[in-house]
Amino acid sequence: MTAPHRLTAEIYTEGILRGDRLTLSRAITLIESTLPSDQQLATEIIRNCLPYTGNAYRVGITGVPGVGKSTFIDGFGSFLISEKLRVAVLAVDPSSSRSGGSILGDKTRMEKLAASSQAFIRPSPSGGNPGGVARKTRESILLCEAAGYEMILIETVGVGQSEISVFSMVDFFLLLLLPHAGDELQGIKRGIMEMADGLIIHKADGVMQAAARQAQTAYSQAIRLFNHDSPDWRPQIIPCSSLTGKGYPEIGNMLNQYKTLTLKNGFWEQKRSLQLNQWLKEAIEQQLLNSFYSHPRVVSRLEELSREVADKRLSPTEAAEILLKTMGES
Amino acid sequence: MTAPHRLTAEIYTEGILRGDRLTLSRAITLIESTLPSDQQLATEIIRNCLPYTGNAYRVGITGVPGVGKSTFIDGFGSFLISEKLRVAVLAVDPSSSRSGGSILGDKTRMEKLAASSQAFIRPSPSGGNPGGVARKTRESILLCEAAGYEMILIETVGVGQSEISVFSMVDFFLLLLLPHAGDELQGIKRGIMEMADGLIIHKADGVMQAAARQAQTAYSQAIRLFNHDSPDWRPQIIPCSSLTGKGYPEIGNMLNQYKTLTLKNGFWEQKRSLQLNQWLKEAIEQQLLNSFYSHPRVVSRLEELSREVADKRLSPTEAAEILLKTMGES
Repeated sequence: MTAPHRLTAEIYTEGILRGDRLTLSRAITLIESTLPSDQQLATEIIRNCLPYTGNAYRVGITGVPGVGKSTFIDGFGSFLISEKLRVAVLAVDPSSSRSGGSILGDKTRMEKLAASSQAFIRPSPSGGNPGGVARKTRESILLCEAAGYEMILIETVGVGQSEISVFSMVDFFLLLLLPHAGDELQGIKRGIMEMADGLIIHKADGVMQAAARQAQTAYSQAIRLFNHDSPDWRPQIIPCSSLTGKGYPEIGNMLNQYKTLTLKNGFWEQKRSLQLNQWLKEAIEQQLLNSFYSHPRVVSRLEELSREVADKRLSPTEAAEILLKTMGES
Repeated sequence: MTAPHRLTAEIYTEGILRGDRLTLSRAITLIESTLPSDQQLATEIIRNCLPYTGNAYRVGITGVPGVGKSTFIDGFGSFLISEKLRVAVLAVDPSSSRSGGSILGDKTRMEKLAASSQAFIRPSPSGGNPGGVARKTRESILLCEAAGYEMILIETVGVGQSEISVFSMVDFFLLLLLPHAGDELQGIKRGIMEMADGLIIHKADGVMQAAARQAQTAYSQAIRLFNHDSPDWRPQIIPCSSLTGKGYPEIGNMLNQYKTLTLKNGFWEQKRSLQLNQWLKEAIEQQLLNSFYSHPRVVSRLEELSREVADKRLSPTEAAEILLKTMGES
């Protein structure tokens, strides 16, 4: 999906800085495009917008399928808007093969937010490798910030590396849990609980309230065994219902407390700066690997050398050396 | 430290396959050497040994400083030898800056094992980047296997990425814990507990036996919240004392049960094959990044471009593109 009329980088930039949602949306489409001319235009727009970035609160939201992430974002996002904030919602789904139609899908899942003039909802860029999706999301965050959104909620969708990827681009990482402790939660992936700055026991309403309290106790004990990154911060565990809105103000308070604390102790800026460095490193790695694995001579020899490694005729180190030499020959 | 006499790859190979510890030790020194001629010789030796590799049980051992890893390895290794197994001990320490003298250090820490003709102890390769240390350890494992060692215990030393690195090269990952639950264990890093195939409550002797039982209960509850990789396997939690030898037979049994189960359900081979693929990928990545970051034109421009990224004048994506183009120019 490319913008129907070809605009200049200046017109895009002006529209974004004015907060125009259609221009923002079209610019993100350029970021996601694989056409070299679109990519070049996107690069220019991002460069123009860079001085106006960095002012939003970037919040990652994750949880197992069925925990109600979309419902939570719809409700909590609307709560934030009632607090006079502008809210952008992005999603990261490395496994996504959805087409443009999913925009409608996401907007349907988030009815209240979609109806607000203060919200911007953008589904996950479809397809591509996880590194590519991460880059597109990071660049989309920048454009949303330039467009004046103050809260950016980034939802992990699907499986795989999306949590780690989102963790590396947010200020605060929120894990939604079901109101049961134990076997029901086996779906939480390695290390995710330890990455969380806050835990939400979602669907804590009706008959599940007692279970939610038990889960709160169980998780309080579990997280005490972990080591947390942010100095002086202890992850909070908050029961919440998106049916009644219970817990939203407490979650808002938690986000404010965290920001106040980490701005004061310097961790906020330190994390942002580390994330920017990390992004640069990843961009280098991604582009190096792309050019390696798409090199015709590498493509033609990789399978054969992998087989020799599997058959114990070549060590991985030696196979890698041969491939790199192959690429270097001209 | 290079072997005093220059031997041919054939002589090294023959000595290793005969189980000669001095030859094995010298060959590992070649693996760790940075001299191109040593590296070439090491590559040949590894290639020759490859058909004789893969038969050992590779066990990773981790835990916070003070948990008694060396004492445990000394005691449990001696127990394995009493069970008629040959035992090799390797260590991974990406932060290591120790010199050859540490060989004596490690042997002193493991007195019983060091005195046995059925044991081989090798300290961590010193210095270098984490990727380099991982490669050296993986290649050392192969040579120990070719030399007929049936149990390879790989100890994580120091901080940082060593646990994840060791996890990626072993069949079974053992986490040693102190006989207290709670705050004392804050040192356990993100995701480590979830990577463990077995948990040992170490130092469970004397007055600490009651505390160890409490810790066992606390950890049983904590690990139920996690998702484990190996199908049908539930990590066991075993109290153990290296003063009395209590728990060693149970740990031996656990290792046997795990191997029997995973050989039967196919996970043993599947994990080995994934690890080999992973090694090849890492070797490619490592060598690509090395050649990038050591490229003179990259070196000369990296700092300036990083500053432009920090100052919001350039996006990481664009900076990476410029650096890659710089390298490609000739």
